[in-house]
Amino acid sequence: MSTSTPTTPSTDELFMGEAIRIAQTGVELGQFPFGAVIVMGGRSIASAHNSVKASMDPTAHAEIMAIRRACSKLYTTSLEDTTLYSTCEPCLMCLSACFWAGIRRIVFGASIADAAAHGIRQINAPTRQVAPFYGDFFNIRQGFMREECLTLFEKWSKNHK
Amino acid sequence: MSTSTPTTPSTDELFMGEAIRIAQTGVELGQFPFGAVIVMGGRSIASAHNSVKASMDPTAHAEIMAIRRACSKLYTTSLEDTTLYSTCEPCLMCLSACFWAGIRRIVFGASIADAAAHGIRQINAPTRQVAPFYGDFFNIRQGFMREECLTLFEKWSKNHK
Repeated sequence: MSTSTPTTPSTDELFMGEAIRIAQTGVELGQFPFGAVIVMGGRSIASAHNSVKASMDPTAHAEIMAIRRACSKLYTTSLEDTTLYSTCEPCLMCLSACFWAGIRRIVFGASIADAAAHGIRQINAPTRQVAPFYGDFFNIRQGFMREECLTLFEKWSKNHK
Repeated sequence: MSTSTPTTPSTDELFMGEAIRIAQTGVELGQFPFGAVIVMGGRSIASAHNSVKASMDPTAHAEIMAIRRACSKLYTTSLEDTTLYSTCEPCLMCLSACFWAGIRRIVFGASIADAAAHGIRQINAPTRQVAPFYGDFFNIRQGFMREECLTLFEKWSKNHK
């Protein structure tokens, strides 16, 4: 009989788990291996996987789609006091979309460098390096559940060899 | 009787003129004063004004909307060999969207600093400064028909005082 105490997943673990699951769905549908979730007041209000190929829209990254869905759902252009969870470090397009939407807190798993290492084309602009362009806007937790997020790339890579 | 020779507008003048006209339409509809046109093989294939307020979508900048429309029309995610005309210097979100769509040539009028000077919130990231993130990707003509583009901001400012 184990004496270890079961641990309750943290809020960040719960929602990153949700981002990973939707990214997995995307991979199964032949999309790029990225997922994002937007959380307000402890509740997930929108989630999306990358759907660039499915929608023939090069701007349909997971983060952008989640932002559009959340804004549509709440009928607002402002997502202040929300957190965006992303399986991968947001690219400059998505990070800027977070800025325009007022999303200050971002939690991401794998890095842009991780995605590039798996053969996924990237803009070489790590959030840490570009953050000054946005003033003191963002509060970013990076590398969270990175290993689990990397498995998405590995699954995607296998299907694209 | 005038002896001056009438001049034929250049291709860049024609399409920037189109971008300005659609931006004017946007301003009249209460949107932010920005317009964009995408040109392929000497033909305008898509145009848009900013529609953030109308669509409750903070990503609905003019450039993003024009890219979505062009891709939808041509059923592709690649707009290689096109030029994007924008009344204002693209923000980091829109510049990155051009990168993802494969649009290398960009012609813009007013600068990000011009927009900020008219009270329009901006990301302080001039294209010249951020271009290195995209490698040698972009060919940018800046400040083209700037004065005409500035009148859009002035018209917008008057309506927002």
